[in-house]
Amino acid sequence: MLVNLLRPKTTVSAHCDLPCGVYDPAQARIEAESVKAIIEKYHANEDPAFRVRAIQIKEQRSNLVKEHLWVLWTDYFKPPHFEKYPQLNELFNQATKLAGAAGTKGSVDVKVADDLLAKIAEIDSIFWETKKAA
Amino acid sequence: MLVNLLRPKTTVSAHCDLPCGVYDPAQARIEAESVKAIIEKYHANEDPAFRVRAIQIKEQRSNLVKEHLWVLWTDYFKPPHFEKYPQLNELFNQATKLAGAAGTKGSVDVKVADDLLAKIAEIDSIFWETKKAA
Amino acid sequence: MLVNLLRPKTTVSAHCDLPCGVYDPAQARIEAESVKAIIEKYHANEDPAFRVRAIQIKEQRSNLVKEHLWVLWTDYFKPPHFEKYPQLNELFNQATKLAGAAGTKGSVDVKVADDLLAKIAEIDSIFWETKKAA
Amino acid sequence: MLVNLLRPKTTVSAHCDLPCGVYDPAQARIEAESVKAIIEKYHANEDPAFRVRAIQIKEQRSNLVKEHLWVLWTDYFKPPHFEKYPQLNELFNQATKLAGAAGTKGSVDVKVADDLLAKIAEIDSIFWETKKAA
Amino acid sequence: MLVNLLRPKTTVSAHCDLPCGVYDPAQARIEAESVKAIIEKYHANEDPAFRVRAIQIKEQRSNLVKEHLWVLWTDYFKPPHFEKYPQLNELFNQATKLAGAAGTKGSVDVKVADDLLAKIAEIDSIFWETKKAA
Amino acid sequence: MLVNLLRPKTTVSAHCDLPCGVYDPAQARIEAESVKAIIEKYHANEDPAFRVRAIQIKEQRSNLVKEHLWVLWTDYFKPPHFEKYPQLNELFNQATKLAGAAGTKGSVDVKVADDLLAKIAEIDSIFWETKKAA
Repeated sequence: MLVNLLRPKTTVSAHCDLPCGVYDPAQARIEAESVKAIIEKYHANEDPAFRVRAIQIKEQRSNLVKEHLWVLWTDYFKPPHFEKYPQLNELFNQATKLAGAAGTKGSVDVKVADDLLAKIAEIDSIFWETKKAA
Repeated sequence: MLVNLLRPKTTVSAHCDLPCGVYDPAQARIEAESVKAIIEKYHANEDPAFRVRAIQIKEQRSNLVKEHLWVLWTDYFKPPHFEKYPQLNELFNQATKLAGAAGTKGSVDVKVADDLLAKIAEIDSIFWETKKAA
Repeated sequence: MLVNLLRPKTTVSAHCDLPCGVYDPAQARIEAESVKAIIEKYHANEDPAFRVRAIQIKEQRSNLVKEHLWVLWTDYFKPPHFEKYPQLNELFNQATKLAGAAGTKGSVDVKVADDLLAKIAEIDSIFWETKKAA
Repeated sequence: MLVNLLRPKTTVSAHCDLPCGVYDPAQARIEAESVKAIIEKYHANEDPAFRVRAIQIKEQRSNLVKEHLWVLWTDYFKPPHFEKYPQLNELFNQATKLAGAAGTKGSVDVKVADDLLAKIAEIDSIFWETKKAA
Repeated sequence: MLVNLLRPKTTVSAHCDLPCGVYDPAQARIEAESVKAIIEKYHANEDPAFRVRAIQIKEQRSNLVKEHLWVLWTDYFKPPHFEKYPQLNELFNQATKLAGAAGTKGSVDVKVADDLLAKIAEIDSIFWETKKAA
Repeated sequence: MLVNLLRPKTTVSAHCDLPCGVYDPAQARIEAESVKAIIEKYHANEDPAFRVRAIQIKEQRSNLVKEHLWVLWTDYFKPPHFEKYPQLNELFNQATKLAGAAGTKGSVDVKVADDLLAKIAEIDSIFWETKKAA
């Protein structure tokens, strides 16, 4: 190992964190669907202890939505994508904000979850266009 | 919310951890596809530092596979499912073992990742049968 | 390292995730005792902020119970154990459910925590029988 | 608290995840300084086991850099900032990429860590300008 | 790798966990400032759902304060420091307790957060004295 | 719960993070036993990929040892304990250092793991003395 470690490192042209190259906006979508379901169940159940759990779990799931989206934005999308889809940066910024304090973390409004899912759907369609174009 | 907080507590009949009720074997499948891709890139790249990262990330992704499968086994599937699909317990036990030390954590053999993906596909088909039957 | 990595991999006969081979149901039991203590303190303290924290921490500890049990089920127990103890699968499925939404996550009933502790005790006795038999 | 719980719900205009409103690019900078130090110590120590640990810890610290930067990008910066600093999106995308697979995760080149620190410094100066302007 | 791994391991004189050698009490201070801000916003917002989130996030941030302080206590400070600053052990024990159940986790009193910040400031000044002396 | 929510806030005299009051040095001991087993298996298996995993998992388990010990030091032990057992601070500082970079994280020497286990045994005996005295 030593000998190899002392050799010049082979070049890595990576677009993900290994790179493993496997990305799927479904990961963000599934967590966002969970967030929407949690909000619906929150309104359907008046047990205060249940609602405390709902708020907690909604916080965690919303954070997973942000994580999955951030990874797509930084690790999957590359300069040529941002040139071809100039709306990408704002789209991801809005989508992650919609999963944050001004979004599904801070709100129990189903419409906010629907807005988040709509943004993820926009990202998803661009994502698959770029995969087909690859 | 306040008015609701003042109403009597309602009964909760839960089968998932909020319950949010959103489950999708795609979560385990995506992580397992990542594991397979990591193994393939591991063999294609002889940089020792890259391989150390590949082993690390394969470990983490394999663990995510186990987590997603365990949640399905405990939180989604219920007694009637285990009666109708008596193979479910062994199927989940084998699948999670295939993502562990004797599986994709301990091995860099692509076939092991394929076996894992095949088990997840079996679970996936049973899962969707039960969803349709619900 | 390269030379070694290109050599056929030595066989690993693993039953845990390194394998390290150290398992102890005490890990699940301690977390479950904590869950029970949290429920008792929840009922003894009427401060709403305290109760929010109790529900949160109970959620986390209950999840640790599930994690520790899942690891035993997948990583410690092997086919011969499942043959000798045909109740193992149902026992683990019930125990992990008792730490979930229909169990100590969703409930503040001390009896549910006692039921969970009883299931862990059953698992513990089988575990130590298998260790002695090893 | 009780009395407050009984009062009507007030509007929340949030720009962070509670909102707590405390942000500091120093969090990303400290982790990036750690990454640079790890790379330096990696080159200074030929013990393979040490180097494995260095690669692991560099991976984790690089991820923390990404996390801290993503939070600033989504949670601190708002539309008016992006209008005033049109380079912000690309700056954050480049900085987080510099902490990823094509950056400090995949490389043991000190220059890459220096590039990352330089991007964080650019973000830091914009951040403090916006704080003064607030 | 094998040959090297079988050679006596080169001595490591470490004072942190790689060691990377980068420490900064600012990490604990920033989290504690967040805790104080959360408590202030908690009192300023009567929405019960907001308060549940505030209590949750305060719990997490308080824990990060403890983590950062524990790392300084164990990994940065060494015997000569404890000889020169005999108050260090009690200082860290009190500071971490001030971020725990009897501190900012269990309380919504701003004064408790101020006491925590004061302890961190004491640690910070000792820390920088030792850095200058190094 | 509602009625309770309407009652005046009661005083909380806490010495753990809920407080749940359940502590057991067995948690640290089990992780340390795992660390020792990992080191033994590391020396018994020359597969480089296995050794990379061993180093990774040893790092994580060693960190769990530190976590469990830190919690005991800050959350369980109180001023009267430190008066009665003046060696406690140094004992915990040495034990956590033995699980760190200069200990089981940085070393593959079984003796270091034995030293760690010995320190945990000292803490364990003091712990149980204080429980009996309580």
